[in-house]
Formats: sequence, structure tokens, C-alpha cells
Amino acid sequence: MAVYTHLGAEELTALIAQYDVGELVSAKGIAEGVSNSNWLIETTGSDSASSDGRGARFILTMYERRIELSDLPFFLGLLDHLSERDCPVPRTIHDLEGAAYRLLDGKAIALIEYLPGVSVDHPTPGQARAVGEALAQMHAASQDFGQTRANGLDIEGSRRMLAECGTPALASIDPALPKSLEIAARLSEDWPQDLPRAICHTDLFPDNVLMLGDQVTGMIDFYFACEDAMAYDLAVTHAAWCFDRTGEQFSQDIGAALIEGYESLRKLEPRERECLPILAQGACMRFIASRAEDWIETPADALVTRKDPMDFVRRLSFYGKAGSSAFAPSR
Amino acid sequence: MAVYTHLGAEELTALIAQYDVGELVSAKGIAEGVSNSNWLIETTGSDSASSDGRGARFILTMYERRIELSDLPFFLGLLDHLSERDCPVPRTIHDLEGAAYRLLDGKAIALIEYLPGVSVDHPTPGQARAVGEALAQMHAASQDFGQTRANGLDIEGSRRMLAECGTPALASIDPALPKSLEIAARLSEDWPQDLPRAICHTDLFPDNVLMLGDQVTGMIDFYFACEDAMAYDLAVTHAAWCFDRTGEQFSQDIGAALIEGYESLRKLEPRERECLPILAQGACMRFIASRAEDWIETPADALVTRKDPMDFVRRLSFYGKAGSSAFAPSR
Repeated sequence: MAVYTHLGAEELTALIAQYDVGELVSAKGIAEGVSNSNWLIETTGSDSASSDGRGARFILTMYERRIELSDLPFFLGLLDHLSERDCPVPRTIHDLEGAAYRLLDGKAIALIEYLPGVSVDHPTPGQARAVGEALAQMHAASQDFGQTRANGLDIEGSRRMLAECGTPALASIDPALPKSLEIAARLSEDWPQDLPRAICHTDLFPDNVLMLGDQVTGMIDFYFACEDAMAYDLAVTHAAWCFDRTGEQFSQDIGAALIEGYESLRKLEPRERECLPILAQGACMRFIASRAEDWIETPADALVTRKDPMDFVRRLSFYGKAGSSAFAPSR
Repeated sequence: MAVYTHLGAEELTALIAQYDVGELVSAKGIAEGVSNSNWLIETTGSDSASSDGRGARFILTMYERRIELSDLPFFLGLLDHLSERDCPVPRTIHDLEGAAYRLLDGKAIALIEYLPGVSVDHPTPGQARAVGEALAQMHAASQDFGQTRANGLDIEGSRRMLAECGTPALASIDPALPKSLEIAARLSEDWPQDLPRAICHTDLFPDNVLMLGDQVTGMIDFYFACEDAMAYDLAVTHAAWCFDRTGEQFSQDIGAALIEGYESLRKLEPRERECLPILAQGACMRFIASRAEDWIETPADALVTRKDPMDFVRRLSFYGKAGSSAFAPSR
């Protein structure tokens, strides 16, 4: 949650002049994204587009870390593809030469549609149902995307990342953490390879969903999107939405509404349903691994809040014990 | 530059309902302010105000550190007072009960008018002139404000703050820094006490001024505002606008334009003009002191950029050598 780069009026004005969006009116660095700097930009609006003189707003994203330049055409093309198919996803604003991204001081930047909505902290079943539906819509709309990207944080990638942290470092975070290494190895061996696939978000936490009431107005932050099993994406979303922050409290109602919303557009195959428990454990493992690595790499007195991997160790343990009952309809 | 507190959709919706601004549409944490958390808020707009259905935008500020609750009526009342007198200053949005601020989880929050404009990095003389004019306008408009607040960071306060850092700690930042202690003592002894006063901003750096072209659209961040000599406020603004970041390059043109703009609305008295060199050195001392204290208190590996006090030691040295020539008209 930071803005890593300073951009003054002069640089922003010159940059905005490369797009058909009118003149710069305002720019505020926004505290979103951990690997990007983002600005909320207001302009006088496009001359050529159907402008009502109201001004227009955009998100300007500067890619700072972690993101490979070669992945940008996939991420930005995906936004355009999904947006054209009426998914609640921000489209990319292309520059006057038609490019989806530009380079500024050697860093890639993109201008992205601004969408209304606010992220919820305590979802209702109605909101969870809407998120499930939006996820299924996205899976369907991605089928003819034509580009693909491998999941670098699949179960084997997560296992390897945890192993590279090393047992002593993991134990220094929490004595119960190294046990995840064994579980990761077992999950990796048993991982289902035959499930139907699509482009998946794989990080659809509440803070990556904008809502107004029960309506999903935006799914954002697609920078982990990749091809994977659709049921895995649903399992990630289940783990992200159905617990309190620390993973101690599970809500059957939210989980049931999420799956019901998903199945209102795309019915799960029996084999997908059967695999949900292992997929959900794999989803937990992915966040345990990345959080453990971040924890070890971030100094304790750095002014950023480190996310505790144990929040997902608790979820992992829950899914291991609950099995298929975690995905049963609400009673 | 951070958002220290998380506010979810539920809390924000409940908060916004306490104001006549319509319903919450969007909220983005913005990376502004070092002692506050700030959000750029969009709502559907007020029913009672002259709304054209376009929605309305506001800055929501949560006071996190450094600011005394007892000072808030002064700061927020000043915004309203100046805004009513057509100064480019955001007004405070009062809640349904008429209060300028509310408490949320024990922290004070205020809803503030959103103003267009962007902060410049490399001001032109035309822009500096506009800033000088806006400063003089503010000084004139504050004369009948009726509230006052002492300057806690006046020359004696700055000297004391530096002394409390201690010579070894100052020398550890830079061997040349402890010498500022002697200069501060001398400035404090010679400090003029008889200059005409007003409510002063005392922190009007370029990042606290929003501009569109040569127009000042907003002066913001009044949380150091206090009663002091008007010429001191002009000297602060001179030190803040007329140098490159590190204080190595001085621009006579920018300085001349700033003073010319100021004098287009309020002519400096001969005694004020005479005092500008010592006032500017006092202004430098204020930023040397606060930056030195922040430097010592901030761990070197914290993920925030510490501001180097030496940037203002260089300005101090410049003003000491240049004397009144630093404030002469452009040649």
C-alpha cells in the first residue's frame, strides 16, 4: 500500500497528452497495490468519445516490481477482452498510437478505466452470491481469449517457495508453520490434473472486488491471472471470502451463497465438486507460501503491515478436517 | 505518505450517512499527509444542495498523529473562513448536526471539499507569482478570523528541538549539521518581534498547492497554520519554492515572481523587507529541526523516505551569504 514513485504535474501532463482523454485536472496517488504505484486521475474528458463535459476518471498504474513486462499484453489484453464481454472489469485506455502500455523512465505504465464501488469487509450472502456469479461469468468470457499464461504459484510452485524459505525461518515465524511443508508435498502429489480450465483471477479477495450494495461493479488487480482449473479459482475465492481475517471463523452461509452464485451461471461437474477440498487446501498453501516469503523478506520495523501466514494455516487446517462439508449448501 | 487505518465499505457507508452528501459510490485511500490518513470519496451528491446528478467528491481525513484534537476547531474553522472569502482553500463539510468533525473509533475525522489541480515540481515564474498572490490573499482574509494559535515551531521552538536532538545525533546525520545549533541561537536572539501578523500557513511547499496552469486552485494541508509575522510566511514560501530539492540551485526569477505576486495584493513594509534574510534563515531552521528529529526517530530501513535536513542547511547558508540580494527583483 504505497506510491513508490513521485510524478509531478509536468510529467503527468505530458503523459496524459499521449491519450485522447482531454487535459489533466487532478491526480492523487492512491494506496492500492503492493507491486504497483497507482494514481486516481481526473481529466476534462475525451473530445472524440461521447463526452458530456463531466470530466473523466482513470486509474494510472505504474508497474514497479514483480510484474514481467512480457506479461503485460496478457494482463491488459485480458481486461479489454473481459470488459468487451460485459464482465465488471476495467478496460485499458489505449494511447493515441493504440498502445495498451507506455514506458516512463524505464517503467511500464497503463491507463485503466475507473470503476465505482467500494470493497466490503463483512460480506453478506447476497454479496457473496454476486461475486460467485461474476467469477463464473469471467471464466465463461475468457474461453475465447486466445492468450494464456502459466500459474507460477500453483501447488508445486507454492511447495518450492516454502521449501526455499527453509524450516528454521518458517519456524521462527511460528513453530507450527514448518508442518505446512509436508502438507504441501502431499497436496502436490495428489493434485488433480484433469479439471476443466479457463483464465482464472486466482486472487479474488474482497479488496479486489468493488461493490455497490449487492452488485459487483468491478473485479480488479488481475496481476496473478493465469490459466488454471476453474474450480481452483472458486476454491481460492472461497478461502478468501468465507472466513474472518485470521481464519478462525468460517461462515457456511457465505460459502454456500458463493457456490450457489457460481453455479447459477456454470454448474460444477461432479469431479470438480469432489476436488474442492484439495483445491481449497492448495489455495491456502499458495497464500501461506507467499506470505511466509514476504514475512522473511520484510524487516520487522518496516512501516508496512506484514500479513501473517498463520491466517491461512488455520484455513488449511479447517479445509483438511471439514472435507466436502465445507462446500455443502447452507442448512 | 500512507493510509494508517483501514476503513471498509460498511464503516464508510455508515459514516457518509451522517452527512448530506448522498450515498457512497467510491472510496480510495490516498497517499497524502504524513500525520493523517486520507480517502478520496465519491458520493451520489447532496439532495438539498444544487446537485446536477453528477456525483460529488470529497477528501475524508482521519487525524492519526501529531494533531491535537483541541486544535481542530481552529484548523477547520480557518478553512471555512478563508473559503467564504474566496481564497482557494477547501471548505469543511459539516455533518447533519452541524459538526465540523466527528469521532470514529476514538479518532477525529473530517470531510473536506475536493479541489481540482495538481502540484508542480518545477514552478514557472507565472506560477510562483500566482502563489505569492494567493498567500497575500490568505493573509488579508485571515485578519477577521477571530481565532488564534501559537506557532510551536517558531525560531525558539526550532532551536530547542535541535538542541534536544543532541550534538552527537546531529553529527551522525552530517558532520556539518551541529553548526546549525549555534546559528539557531543567534537567530533566536536577533529575531524581529515587531512585524505585522496574520494567520500564516507556514508550510506552503509546492506539494501543498494545487494548480491548473498558472492558476492556484487549492492551498491545502493547513495543519501547521498559526499566528505569526506575514513576512515570515512569505520567507517560508520563498525557501520552499525557489530552490531545487537539495537546496543547491537558487532561482532568482522564481523568488522575484513570488514576491511580486505577493506585493500585487499587499505591499511589504520597509521593515518587513529588511527582515526577509533573517526570516528566511529562521524558516530554514524550522525545517532543519523537524527533519533532523524525524531522521533520528525513523529507522534507516523503514520503507519511508527520510527527508534530508542538509537540503535546508544549504538554503540556510545561501540566505546567510546572499542577504537582501536573495529578495531583489529579477534582473
